[in-house]
This record gives sequence, structure tokens and C-alpha cells, in this order.
Amino acid sequence: MIVGAVAHDTRSRLLDTAVKLFSEHGVEGTSLQMIADELGITKAAVYYHFKTKDAIADEIVTPLLAELNPIVEEASARRTRGAQIDHALAGFVDLIVRRRALVGLMIRDPGILRAAGRTSRSPTVAEVRAKLYMMFVGPDPTPTDMITVHILTRGLALAGGDPEYADVDDETLRHHLLEAGRRLLGRPRRRT
Amino acid sequence: MIVGAVAHDTRSRLLDTAVKLFSEHGVEGTSLQMIADELGITKAAVYYHFKTKDAIADEIVTPLLAELNPIVEEASARRTRGAQIDHALAGFVDLIVRRRALVGLMIRDPGILRAAGRTSRSPTVAEVRAKLYMMFVGPDPTPTDMITVHILTRGLALAGGDPEYADVDDETLRHHLLEAGRRLLGRPRRRT
Repeated sequence: MIVGAVAHDTRSRLLDTAVKLFSEHGVEGTSLQMIADELGITKAAVYYHFKTKDAIADEIVTPLLAELNPIVEEASARRTRGAQIDHALAGFVDLIVRRRALVGLMIRDPGILRAAGRTSRSPTVAEVRAKLYMMFVGPDPTPTDMITVHILTRGLALAGGDPEYADVDDETLRHHLLEAGRRLLGRPRRRT
Repeated sequence: MIVGAVAHDTRSRLLDTAVKLFSEHGVEGTSLQMIADELGITKAAVYYHFKTKDAIADEIVTPLLAELNPIVEEASARRTRGAQIDHALAGFVDLIVRRRALVGLMIRDPGILRAAGRTSRSPTVAEVRAKLYMMFVGPDPTPTDMITVHILTRGLALAGGDPEYADVDDETLRHHLLEAGRRLLGRPRRRT
């Protein structure tokens, strides 16, 4: 039991450390050895948990997709387009704020999504992204609609994960991202 | 003369190669040796042109700032807020499209802007960015205004530099980015 708990703890510390180093050096610029050194463990100990950097990247990306997917599913069950947009935007912004270090990393470093794309887990990044986009633009988008939502979703994620806002508390950041997102999507201001 | 021309050619090929490798591996994940190998020259030949990666990053970023700065200056000379926004947006989008590989790299990899930030050239990234932001939000922005323009400018740059649109020709990409930017900023549609 105790050994299991220690292994579990090492695994989650290892993932946190990987996110930190990936953010600082990029996925390409980070080695398993660097992760081991930062944690003060041997490379063999890292290897016990993850055989490759891809496996680490996958383990980082998959939980995010697992959180975003039901948000988009719930949004699609709303009756009006306005309610669909509002639900998808609020859920997406909430996820960005709660996981801002990770989301910023995913947007900035294509390496981590390439790694996740090599895995066979479902839902895939492409599937969840397509469903999220459709919530914002509807089922029959023009090319301009598509690029608008591309700008909006990546801009939100990049802004939310920006070191410039690292000291802003969750509630404040959520409020401003949501207001900015609503404004950019042409949604009416919410009464507060 | 011929020797000078060859050196000049090597220098510009070196910069192109650096942009390519920085995009693939991140600034952190790229070494002067990798640049030399990709070009099929010696590391000493790279060193003849640039002593450090920072110097390469600086040489990449500085011309972009030199192009963006007069656009923002021109925009600020326009009389109405609408004309200021339109001029700044059109110029910014045009720069993104013409320099899309570079702009995408600058947005995704903070390493290159960190390197540029270490230099003393003017105007700096921070100065040009502040002037661009002011064109979009006016002189007295709220926090939501600031985050809105942050989302918009980075989203535009990230979308323009996305490999997904690498096959889209300049005119088409410019059209869609501009329309999307106008829509996101709440500007009226242009007559075409």
C-alpha cells in the first residue's frame, strides 16, 4: 500500500515536472534525463513510469480532452444556438483557467499535440476540437467562420496560459476571458 | 565582391534554416550545430555570422518590429477610432500573412522573444505591442479590453502561422483573417 502510494506520488510529481520543463524548454528541448535531474531521481525511476516522452505527453493531454469532451456534449444538447455558444464558451474558459499552464503549453508547443496524436486513445484532439468549433459556428460554417473560431479558441487558450496573467486569480481571469470571449463572439453582455 | 555576396547568401540561408529548425524543435531544442548540419556547413561557418542563438533570434525578430512599427504609427495618425482600428488591423494582418512562418514561431515560442528582449535595439517588442494594442482598444482600456485585444492579436498571429493554412495562398488567407478580425472587433463588413 505504502509503496503504491509513493509510486503514485512520484508519477504525479513527474507529470508536474514534465509540464514545467516542457513549458520552459519545449517538448523537443526536454529529455527524460532533465526530468529525472529536476526531480532528483534516476533516469531508471522515470523509465519505470514512462518509457518515452510521447507517453508523458499523452498522459498530459488525455485528461484535458476527457474534461473538454463532456462540456461540448452538454453544449450540443442545448436548444438554442445562443445557449450552445454560452455553454461551450463558459466550459472552455473554465477549463483554460483551471488548467492554464497546461493549456498554454498545448497551444504553444505543437510537439505535445503531435505526441498525443500518435496515440490511439479516444476521443482524439481532432475530434474534440471539431465538436467545440461546431458549437461556436454552427453546422454549416463558411471559411471565415472557421478562421474566426480558430482565432478565438487559440487566442483564449494562449491568453489564459500567458505568464503575463500568472498572478491573476482564477475568478478574475475567468471573468475577463468570458467577457472578452462573449464580446468577440458578438454575444450580449451578461448581467452581473 | 563575390566573396561578400556568398557571405550574404550564407547569412540569409542561415536565418531561413534557423526559422525552420526553431519552428520544428523550438529555440531551446535547436543548437548552432543542428543549423550547421542542416545547411551542410561547419559550426565555425555559422559562428562566423552569429556567435549565439540569441543573436540569430534577434536578427529574426528585429525586421518584423521594423515593419510593424510604421504601420502602427500611420494608424495613430488617422482621425477616427474606426479608421485607426481598420488601418492597424489591415497592416497587422498583412504582416502576418507575408511573414506567416516567422509570426507563428514568435507567438508559439516565447524563447525567441525572450532572446530579442535581451537586446537593446529599438523599438522593442514591448513598445510596438503596446502601441498596437492602443490602436485597437483606445487610450483608456479596461482590463477586459486588454484581454480582448490580447486574445485577438495572438489568435490572429497563431491562426495565420498555423501549418493548417500553409497551403492557402496569401490573398485568400489575408481576406479571411481580415474578415474574421473585423467581425471579432465588431467592425462593419466591408463592401467587396
